[in-house]
Amino acid sequence: MLENLKQKVYEANMKLPEYGLVTFTWGNVSGIDRESGLVVIKPSGVDYEDLSPDKLVVLDLDNNVVEGDLNPSSDTKTHLELYKAFPTLGGIVHTHSVNAVAWAQACEDIPCFGTTHADYFYGAIPCARHLSVEELEEDYERNTGKVIIECFKERGLDPKAVPGVICASHGPFTWGKDAAQAVYHAVVMEEVAKMARLTLAVKPSAVPAPQHVQDKHYMRKHGPNAYYGQK
Amino acid sequence: MLENLKQKVYEANMKLPEYGLVTFTWGNVSGIDRESGLVVIKPSGVDYEDLSPDKLVVLDLDNNVVEGDLNPSSDTKTHLELYKAFPTLGGIVHTHSVNAVAWAQACEDIPCFGTTHADYFYGAIPCARHLSVEELEEDYERNTGKVIIECFKERGLDPKAVPGVICASHGPFTWGKDAAQAVYHAVVMEEVAKMARLTLAVKPSAVPAPQHVQDKHYMRKHGPNAYYGQK
Amino acid sequence: MLENLKQKVYEANMKLPEYGLVTFTWGNVSGIDRESGLVVIKPSGVDYEDLSPDKLVVLDLDNNVVEGDLNPSSDTKTHLELYKAFPTLGGIVHTHSVNAVAWAQACEDIPCFGTTHADYFYGAIPCARHLSVEELEEDYERNTGKVIIECFKERGLDPKAVPGVICASHGPFTWGKDAAQAVYHAVVMEEVAKMARLTLAVKPSAVPAPQHVQDKHYMRKHGPNAYYGQK
Amino acid sequence: MLENLKQKVYEANMKLPEYGLVTFTWGNVSGIDRESGLVVIKPSGVDYEDLSPDKLVVLDLDNNVVEGDLNPSSDTKTHLELYKAFPTLGGIVHTHSVNAVAWAQACEDIPCFGTTHADYFYGAIPCARHLSVEELEEDYERNTGKVIIECFKERGLDPKAVPGVICASHGPFTWGKDAAQAVYHAVVMEEVAKMARLTLAVKPSAVPAPQHVQDKHYMRKHGPNAYYGQK
Repeated sequence: MLENLKQKVYEANMKLPEYGLVTFTWGNVSGIDRESGLVVIKPSGVDYEDLSPDKLVVLDLDNNVVEGDLNPSSDTKTHLELYKAFPTLGGIVHTHSVNAVAWAQACEDIPCFGTTHADYFYGAIPCARHLSVEELEEDYERNTGKVIIECFKERGLDPKAVPGVICASHGPFTWGKDAAQAVYHAVVMEEVAKMARLTLAVKPSAVPAPQHVQDKHYMRKHGPNAYYGQK
Repeated sequence: MLENLKQKVYEANMKLPEYGLVTFTWGNVSGIDRESGLVVIKPSGVDYEDLSPDKLVVLDLDNNVVEGDLNPSSDTKTHLELYKAFPTLGGIVHTHSVNAVAWAQACEDIPCFGTTHADYFYGAIPCARHLSVEELEEDYERNTGKVIIECFKERGLDPKAVPGVICASHGPFTWGKDAAQAVYHAVVMEEVAKMARLTLAVKPSAVPAPQHVQDKHYMRKHGPNAYYGQK
Repeated sequence: MLENLKQKVYEANMKLPEYGLVTFTWGNVSGIDRESGLVVIKPSGVDYEDLSPDKLVVLDLDNNVVEGDLNPSSDTKTHLELYKAFPTLGGIVHTHSVNAVAWAQACEDIPCFGTTHADYFYGAIPCARHLSVEELEEDYERNTGKVIIECFKERGLDPKAVPGVICASHGPFTWGKDAAQAVYHAVVMEEVAKMARLTLAVKPSAVPAPQHVQDKHYMRKHGPNAYYGQK
Repeated sequence: MLENLKQKVYEANMKLPEYGLVTFTWGNVSGIDRESGLVVIKPSGVDYEDLSPDKLVVLDLDNNVVEGDLNPSSDTKTHLELYKAFPTLGGIVHTHSVNAVAWAQACEDIPCFGTTHADYFYGAIPCARHLSVEELEEDYERNTGKVIIECFKERGLDPKAVPGVICASHGPFTWGKDAAQAVYHAVVMEEVAKMARLTLAVKPSAVPAPQHVQDKHYMRKHGPNAYYGQK
């Protein structure tokens, strides 16, 4: 079932240790087949070196396991909420990469200090709020997803233009049109989070890049008039 | 004698350079056989590339060498005190990993700023006080162990829920049910110490994660209702 | 056409990931044949692992593609402006290396804090100003080059003595007598930018090296009385 | 001539890139044969990958080249002054390792914040002053050595107990009983400089380790009552 998607989600998972984004099992990638509405995700707590495509778990969007002998990632319900709310998502990544975590633990948006950030994320990368005691007790992982969605709604953000978020006191989620692009955005977010931290180290009063510079760089790579890369 | 334990303690020692936790010989791992009360530990000042299981030293809990031609780690008596006071310990690690050392040299507890920390350490990682001149002159290494034990007693900490400590102006000790888990916790502590430092770099006034978030993450991985990983 | 130059520019491009200066495709190297006035540059958005000398693009100084099937780097017009204004340049590099970017995002010159810097860059590495809205809308990449040139003119800087610049909220450009030396200077700038950041971390009020020390080190390596290295 | 010493100095030089202490050619190691008073040193500006024992230069203590076709390191006269003033030195290393350079560029001693430092350096690692204009113009490299020696004399430091120094706005020199130990101390100084920087990042008001802790750790490894390692 979904052999092609499983292979791609497997390869995307294996990129996380390759890019230095995970320690031990602290990360997971999923992908969705929009036609069937089925999601493929890493099993919980399995070492990357022991992973193989057939160990991935297949679930429907109501969190029913459809295939797989192992427990799915403990963050599965967060992924499912995001797939349901944001129909353009084809893949989702969660990691504890250290620089994105630092901003999450500081409970601060990552400001758009420059063009590296603006090339991929339009505006600041938002930090979603803490869950209340009630939200956490009711359903921690599902409500983590709901709080991310609330954050994007309240701020009027487009998940295509802002392909990621950091959750307060926790860490980053990124996404893309497929699992591979979600991993790509996880790398970009970690790099941008590092650059932003180093910028504050050089100048604690640093300010975001001018709006016209942010606009220009985002539009160079995205939208009908993009001219970066090969078409 | 204790060939199986020696092999495991050897492998755990070799993980330290692999994970980048030690420079030169600045670290050691021990393991205990609770039935016989015998401890296996790295010899003092021996390069990791020259280490082999038969070079490990076997001691009883009264610091008598039972087997081995080399001097045991100069930190041996600290290990022995911890094994005697904390009966759940099966393995202990000492390193000078740079981020944990930074907090130790600052003489500050490592605050629980987020879920990565909360997944493994319940609450702040404590910084044990300096030895007095008298304690240091009487028996430095044994009293280092005693000061750690005092720290856990005074604060009412459970060494299973807080599997490590930093010693003021010195560095970290971690432990676990066996030598391998003690090394795992050494990696976690270094990663968490790094994230905490970077969090302060982003926001010097950062505060710990809300208590209900700390509780949730610790309980997701530990205790009767844990649901992380495969059971 | 220009097979020798293409090979050299190819090798210089491949040095960028080797030295850890680029993530993904975030960098490019060009070289110029001064006799013909033709420039060889990396194609836009092509992965380094997929690059080969025949994929490089050849352009004249008026931005006409003379050879090559791929789009040239989106930064091409910046390179061309610099070649036209600074006749001693044989190669140019652009990267998003994190420490140089941190200074660029802080919109601050990199001060000459010591001899490592003074050995290669005479005085501070300048931070060129933001483009105005008009400059950006008219021709972003070409005007980026013009703003760099303006910066050197206004400050009376010699591009041979200061072989690089950082652009506000963006990142570094470096250059040299050929593509290989331009890459060498990209490595130096990143290293010097890192040292300068760490210097501020140790002492926020740090000041530049005394002028006679800066002069001595630059002159040890450059000019008629240089005595570093083999002649 | 001195084939054995040349081999050892060659191997010590090759350790510098292996330990990540040098970029390009920014470092050099020498060793002395005390019987003949001859010094073997790296040639100036030669890449490490092109180095071989027969390319090393042999000089006497009056800076006369006795053997070798290449120019000796531009820092040679600094090495010679140190060998003449400190008769216990058998090897000397100079690098631009980034953390030691950061302290040098801040013109600050590296405080003894903990036991890693105290195990090898007794007390703070001193920062030697800038050369005056006259000293620099008269003989920069020789006077760099003289200023280091003055620093040790004025502070009453023993070069055996403090096997290194940082020079203001420049970088570190370390030494030892032979070239290999000088490299060992270069690694220690860089690690200790990094830990000290991270300590300030955690707590800007951090203070040195208590004197009795510094004494204990130094004495555990040095002097007649040392008990670290194998005897």
